[in-house]
Amino acid sequence: MPDPRFFQSKGPFSLENLAAIANAEISEDGDHSRLFRDVASLDEAGPDDISFLDNPRYIEQFGKSKAGAAIVHPDRAKQAPSGMSLLLTPTPYLAYALIARAFHPEEENFSGIDGSAVIHPTAIVGEGCSIGPGVVIETAAEIGSGTRIGANSVIGTGVVIGEKCRIGALCSVAYCLMGNRVQLYAGARIGEAGFGFAVSNKGFITVPQLGRVVIEDDVEIGANTTIDRGTGPDTIIGAGCRIDNLVQIGHNVRLGKGCIIVAQTGISGSTVLEDQVVLGGQVGIAGHLTIGRGAQLGAQSGVMNDLPAGKRYAGSPAIPARQWFRQLAWVKKMSKQKAGADG
Amino acid sequence: MPDPRFFQSKGPFSLENLAAIANAEISEDGDHSRLFRDVASLDEAGPDDISFLDNPRYIEQFGKSKAGAAIVHPDRAKQAPSGMSLLLTPTPYLAYALIARAFHPEEENFSGIDGSAVIHPTAIVGEGCSIGPGVVIETAAEIGSGTRIGANSVIGTGVVIGEKCRIGALCSVAYCLMGNRVQLYAGARIGEAGFGFAVSNKGFITVPQLGRVVIEDDVEIGANTTIDRGTGPDTIIGAGCRIDNLVQIGHNVRLGKGCIIVAQTGISGSTVLEDQVVLGGQVGIAGHLTIGRGAQLGAQSGVMNDLPAGKRYAGSPAIPARQWFRQLAWVKKMSKQKAGADG
Amino acid sequence: MPDPRFFQSKGPFSLENLAAIANAEISEDGDHSRLFRDVASLDEAGPDDISFLDNPRYIEQFGKSKAGAAIVHPDRAKQAPSGMSLLLTPTPYLAYALIARAFHPEEENFSGIDGSAVIHPTAIVGEGCSIGPGVVIETAAEIGSGTRIGANSVIGTGVVIGEKCRIGALCSVAYCLMGNRVQLYAGARIGEAGFGFAVSNKGFITVPQLGRVVIEDDVEIGANTTIDRGTGPDTIIGAGCRIDNLVQIGHNVRLGKGCIIVAQTGISGSTVLEDQVVLGGQVGIAGHLTIGRGAQLGAQSGVMNDLPAGKRYAGSPAIPARQWFRQLAWVKKMSKQKAGADG
Repeated sequence: MPDPRFFQSKGPFSLENLAAIANAEISEDGDHSRLFRDVASLDEAGPDDISFLDNPRYIEQFGKSKAGAAIVHPDRAKQAPSGMSLLLTPTPYLAYALIARAFHPEEENFSGIDGSAVIHPTAIVGEGCSIGPGVVIETAAEIGSGTRIGANSVIGTGVVIGEKCRIGALCSVAYCLMGNRVQLYAGARIGEAGFGFAVSNKGFITVPQLGRVVIEDDVEIGANTTIDRGTGPDTIIGAGCRIDNLVQIGHNVRLGKGCIIVAQTGISGSTVLEDQVVLGGQVGIAGHLTIGRGAQLGAQSGVMNDLPAGKRYAGSPAIPARQWFRQLAWVKKMSKQKAGADG
Repeated sequence: MPDPRFFQSKGPFSLENLAAIANAEISEDGDHSRLFRDVASLDEAGPDDISFLDNPRYIEQFGKSKAGAAIVHPDRAKQAPSGMSLLLTPTPYLAYALIARAFHPEEENFSGIDGSAVIHPTAIVGEGCSIGPGVVIETAAEIGSGTRIGANSVIGTGVVIGEKCRIGALCSVAYCLMGNRVQLYAGARIGEAGFGFAVSNKGFITVPQLGRVVIEDDVEIGANTTIDRGTGPDTIIGAGCRIDNLVQIGHNVRLGKGCIIVAQTGISGSTVLEDQVVLGGQVGIAGHLTIGRGAQLGAQSGVMNDLPAGKRYAGSPAIPARQWFRQLAWVKKMSKQKAGADG
Repeated sequence: MPDPRFFQSKGPFSLENLAAIANAEISEDGDHSRLFRDVASLDEAGPDDISFLDNPRYIEQFGKSKAGAAIVHPDRAKQAPSGMSLLLTPTPYLAYALIARAFHPEEENFSGIDGSAVIHPTAIVGEGCSIGPGVVIETAAEIGSGTRIGANSVIGTGVVIGEKCRIGALCSVAYCLMGNRVQLYAGARIGEAGFGFAVSNKGFITVPQLGRVVIEDDVEIGANTTIDRGTGPDTIIGAGCRIDNLVQIGHNVRLGKGCIIVAQTGISGSTVLEDQVVLGGQVGIAGHLTIGRGAQLGAQSGVMNDLPAGKRYAGSPAIPARQWFRQLAWVKKMSKQKAGADG
């Protein structure tokens, strides 16, 4: 059960309520009126908790779980321990998300503007914002209503932040136009100057970076991730993108809608990801490329060329995933044979 | 055209002025007295803007651009749309840098010391500095004249920062001697203790890290990059180095002058890069190595041995780039043949 | 010799004292009563300094060093320059660590609570803490006695920090229970929400992250490293782990005791490292795996499967290190032969 030191449950909810929230079906022997006080993982749940099974790796834990109820795919219902009520759905993780959000909705208590925040008189802060201690908001910045800004974050001159955004602690945002319901996790760096310089006989000459970062609605950006502003054109993060921690996004990069970028990936300047591209962790993409809609790149892959839509790639340099696995298997087999022949 | 919310142009400038600034030649039919209000990218520029063509990928955009003028290599002049004035130069990107800097010089308005900064009485702050809100400057630190320190940054005990440096928001600088005109982008971490411990039968014993970080003039260090201080010897960043975001530089590393380090690269302790080494993104270099002057390492390469000067390397472990490409091609071809033979 | 601007030596100590501190033996011709004012590296040390030789790469420097004394393995004693006193021990680096800590113990002067810190009235700060300028401590957080918190760090609601911890500047800590003597370096991000969302026909649905980060005693966590809190289960960092800079640790990851994680490595959600696992730099590990006790992974390796205890792995995907080196050698040889045959 979530630690009440950090998380307060809005429960209890009846099984019937939870089924409705999750759009799931109660199993035949399920007790519709039974009350559940919170969600919990399979191995930590007790009789008052509801849990879920999604990843088949945890099926053994499922069979031994003491959870009073669990959300599960109908095909796995028969593996449930006896006495467990079930919520049946083809999408158990989604159902869990909805139920967990019912028990633990995002906080709505707003704390106003802390007295230690330094807000320039020309900045505009909307209704119902929470501005944490030590926050700095510079000239002419605008903060939409219902937005929270975590302690000691710095919002630069002219920045526009939409409504109901959540900016974590110690973030910096500069040269940025941000939509609504955007979340930045602690330490994100938005709008710094990208890596731009010309070579001269007097050394490197810095090229002014004259673009912005445009972040569309419902984007999430992970802790300590860095997104450079454009050089003149903008860097654009499409609606609904999810970007993990410690990701680097170079100047003029454009991400389509709903892209997923796992931790420690880097995207070089002026590269375009079409909608719904998925990048595994520690991927690297060179500059000035286009990655087609829905393409998926395995962790640690390295991309040096445009990639077409909808396919899976792996390796460095990245090749079609099936081909990569075949090459690996071939090298493994042949190098062993050779060693055998030599020995 | 740059968003006036963030960028104020010092224009207009006449084409003749711009040619002088960029040391470029005006094309035959160029209108010497025509005024330009700003720079813009090829696809966003209008008749009052000057743009540039450098990367040949954008030649099609060049042919269709509505820019009033463009900076271009003489060999490409004939591909310009009719009516466009041209500034001809063999180094268009450098010329663009100079012109963009004329329209958008670095800000010179200094804001003094914000009242919320916490500056120890033993610290020394030079003339004409801008010290942002929430900045902390600890005992005996010295800040050179004309330096800016962004909001909520922390300058540790004894640190020396030179003149005209620009420290971004939320940076930390400790155990560091910094030259003039150095730039740190937001969240850079300079001078933390490196990864140093001895193994004992009571667990790890931390080894005191008794060196400094010495940063020479004109260095730029990217957002959320980490540079550890030396163990006793110093970590040294040579004059004019450009270090991108999220780079890790271990203790006692020495970078020569003018090295370029692209994002997410890591350099292990005590490794030496001679002058003008170029590391692509996500490169990893083991400790105690020497990388020769002007060597260039492809993105994601991994280095386990000393490398001689002036050559290109790629792969993990890194080998001469030509050899790496040959190996890749060979594996690709052979594994396909084999699959064919098996099928 | 360490720069007195940053480091104050507690010396001098006699050679006899130092031998006792390090549990080392004085060489036959060593001068027991000779005084040493500080430690220094082999090439910087003078007659009043004590240095050490551990890594055999530096044996030439050892032979030319002007250090008055050095700590060295008995087998290398004969390569010492004449006149140098020696402290002989089979573990010179450990002996150096102990001696360096005698000259430079961790500071014990506590500065109390800075007037600019913002501490919620419900938070509890123990005896003898140092709370730096601009620090924010939110509701009901508890800080153990003798702990230091660096300038502008943010400690979130409910967080518990043990005794004698050292939190660097500009760190954020949320949803975390931390043991004693833990060190966080500047910019570490502990307890942010991990990368968790379900896919629905209305887009991504964020899954509430209802677990904590549990950090056991004596852990060190590097600059700008990110450790996400659990989803419901906790993320657990075992006692004595050493985590370098810019590392990413996903939700529900469990590290055993005494693991070593080098910079820029990423560990995906729910993966378990047993005790004393060693990960080189830039390693990537997929989610839901188990890495056996004492396994060692080479830099840049990529792990997609469980790995057994005690072995060395390398490559991406990771395979036994010996096999990886054999494959590399085979590809190198065969691709050359082929090129020769073609030419």
